[in-house]
Amino acid sequence: MTEKTQQILALNAFDGTSTAALAPDVAVLVERRRRSFGATSVLFYEEPLHVVTGRGTRLITADGTACLDLYNNVPSVGHCHPRVVAAVQDQVARLNIHTRYLFDVVHDYAEKLLATFPAPLDKAIFTCTGSESNDFALRLARLATGGMGVVVTETAYHGNTTAVTEVSPSSYKHGRPPAHVRTVPAPHPSNYGADVAGGFAAAVEAAIDAMAADGIAVAALLCDSIFSSDGVYADPPGFLAAAVDRVRARGGLFIADEVQPGFGRTGAGMWGFARHGVVPDVVTMGKPMGNGLPIAGVVTRADLLERFAGEFGYFNTFGGNPVASAAALAVLDVIAEEGLVANAARVGGRLAGELRTLSKARPAIGEVRGAGLYLGVDIVDPATGAADPAAATRLINQLRARRVLIGAAGPLGHVLKIRSPLCLSDADVDLFLEALADCPF
Amino acid sequence: MTEKTQQILALNAFDGTSTAALAPDVAVLVERRRRSFGATSVLFYEEPLHVVTGRGTRLITADGTACLDLYNNVPSVGHCHPRVVAAVQDQVARLNIHTRYLFDVVHDYAEKLLATFPAPLDKAIFTCTGSESNDFALRLARLATGGMGVVVTETAYHGNTTAVTEVSPSSYKHGRPPAHVRTVPAPHPSNYGADVAGGFAAAVEAAIDAMAADGIAVAALLCDSIFSSDGVYADPPGFLAAAVDRVRARGGLFIADEVQPGFGRTGAGMWGFARHGVVPDVVTMGKPMGNGLPIAGVVTRADLLERFAGEFGYFNTFGGNPVASAAALAVLDVIAEEGLVANAARVGGRLAGELRTLSKARPAIGEVRGAGLYLGVDIVDPATGAADPAAATRLINQLRARRVLIGAAGPLGHVLKIRSPLCLSDADVDLFLEALADCPF
Repeated sequence: MTEKTQQILALNAFDGTSTAALAPDVAVLVERRRRSFGATSVLFYEEPLHVVTGRGTRLITADGTACLDLYNNVPSVGHCHPRVVAAVQDQVARLNIHTRYLFDVVHDYAEKLLATFPAPLDKAIFTCTGSESNDFALRLARLATGGMGVVVTETAYHGNTTAVTEVSPSSYKHGRPPAHVRTVPAPHPSNYGADVAGGFAAAVEAAIDAMAADGIAVAALLCDSIFSSDGVYADPPGFLAAAVDRVRARGGLFIADEVQPGFGRTGAGMWGFARHGVVPDVVTMGKPMGNGLPIAGVVTRADLLERFAGEFGYFNTFGGNPVASAAALAVLDVIAEEGLVANAARVGGRLAGELRTLSKARPAIGEVRGAGLYLGVDIVDPATGAADPAAATRLINQLRARRVLIGAAGPLGHVLKIRSPLCLSDADVDLFLEALADCPF
Repeated sequence: MTEKTQQILALNAFDGTSTAALAPDVAVLVERRRRSFGATSVLFYEEPLHVVTGRGTRLITADGTACLDLYNNVPSVGHCHPRVVAAVQDQVARLNIHTRYLFDVVHDYAEKLLATFPAPLDKAIFTCTGSESNDFALRLARLATGGMGVVVTETAYHGNTTAVTEVSPSSYKHGRPPAHVRTVPAPHPSNYGADVAGGFAAAVEAAIDAMAADGIAVAALLCDSIFSSDGVYADPPGFLAAAVDRVRARGGLFIADEVQPGFGRTGAGMWGFARHGVVPDVVTMGKPMGNGLPIAGVVTRADLLERFAGEFGYFNTFGGNPVASAAALAVLDVIAEEGLVANAARVGGRLAGELRTLSKARPAIGEVRGAGLYLGVDIVDPATGAADPAAATRLINQLRARRVLIGAAGPLGHVLKIRSPLCLSDADVDLFLEALADCPF
């Protein structure tokens, strides 16, 4: 498999070689897109999706087809949730301005958000994207520790700025991250044996030793606690704690990237780090925060922020603006009022169980991992049990033909990635399982 | 003047030492803000503004006061413009999703935006902030040239990521940018004599020589063509061309940071670089693009993008999403239909003329610079003509008491910075001039 093929498989990308087989409206949009956006623009699916509306767990295409959305974690309280829509519609008509003036909604939001964090995490910075949040977190950690070194997992993705791409090995098509970034294998028995906690902690410590040998001091261990781009690794709960202890013993901080597991996704409280019994030094968040409105953030301790403010100004023009804050406040309210964390635990737990049962009858479905409504399902060669990214890509496109939207993750792209809106229902699960049973792969 | 004082003056910041003199609603919000946001959070004015609504060129405070807004360039077609409000309200209720599916509005927008650019600038990348755009532009330039070096002006500000802070000397409270960033004085006769074009180009070339002597190859000259944070330097039109020629002759690119001058602000077409008769290699944009909805972008040539895509994946989850695209499309339509570029030229030109007339009668008002509705006005000691940042700060607060919002720029913060919404009227100018005449400084 060439590097290029691997990329296309991993991303489930439309390969763009021909538009002849596409519906006319899709073909026209594909061509317009190629003209305006060029080379970096990646579309999902062999037959790209032309979407026009969204409702709850459904995306509706131009031909009126309602697709079950098991992919999108951004609209996490549901596509076009009426509470979020109303909050945005109301606020955008009244005021939308930066935070160097006072206005109420950003404070209402910040207080409600900070109330979900344990002490001493009591200060918030609002940005626009998870990338900006992780970039800021790296700056906090490097200033606080005097170190440059960061430990991440082998297929980590933390965002797209210059500094954050360095700590995102999955973004490199060739080449490798620089010397101040060291990688450790994903937390799984296949890499560490039965003692994942001990093995992962030892790997982190070895990475710190290796960078120290090159004269690089550690600034941080940076982890997405659901290890999504690595292929979804959630268990056993608590395994991260030992690694966090090690990095702190060596003078580094623990940055929890909650862009994927945060806001109730794991079904075990609001934040993924809590499943591991740790309190991070810095927490970053993004994607589901405003249900699609661009808002992201960093929550940290006052002392780290003061240290930073002594050296640099920081202002984010759109960060926490009234419209973004209003959307984000509505999201928190909906999560609480609709019991979405409990729903993620219950429906996600049921779905994981059904998939594990199915895997016994269908050996191409391998290990099922995850927590709440973030699941990873290995697609494997039934004969050998080896990762089968080509089959995963076929399955994704077969599911798309059966009106179910899903993606892939992992270094080879062989892990089905399930992270629907948190309002997924039992009927939605039934629909998915029926579609899956119908797919030949 | 201590460094700290300088910061507060430069930013026109509330110093936070006492809330006793503040209105009760303001005092409560200041205290809530301090608790949630801590040390990096800066508020404008000795008496911070508690805003509740915006309309056109007015921001309305909680006590019902309508303030004339000469500060905010983000709501550039006017606060809560009904066309933008309607576009957002409509789109947020229908669909808001990322660009790995096809939907129409982002293509309608991209085509209309790209039509405002000269060849060969025909590809767009959408991000969420000007910082992300400049960060991406630096990555494009460094990959294309193999160089790391960037030349910027002494008080440049280009954004807030790790990489972009390095090219933003104005963000450093102590210390200096790293060796691969070299600075040149702002383009003004006080730095270069009568031949600003030749002097500026020679300074850029000397900066390239100096980095080359340290083994650093040039990647780019990065300029905001209105030089806003340096103190607003626009003239003579065309002066940038010689510097752009020099950087290209040395293998570097020209990145035009249009976050401030773009979208008609200078009154001379849509883009500030056009005033200088140059075609950049990369153009970055942000702030006014969505009238407050977070959308920003990079426009460049296909070959630079292809080079980048060969090395790295790039995806921006919220970049160009339907709601942001709908807002941005409405902004372009309003600029065209309301003739806002011409309005910026005419009203900005009149305002500059009136201020120059006033400066003859009032020697504390020094040089008036700028283009369209981006003006810089030196506030000086009437006796010596020296920069007087303390007087500028007094004036800003006196204007605030007279219901006019304005800010400061420049290395010392002594330059009044005027960049109102583009729909500023003659009556608004009259109101400002009356208020200014009434201020004792």
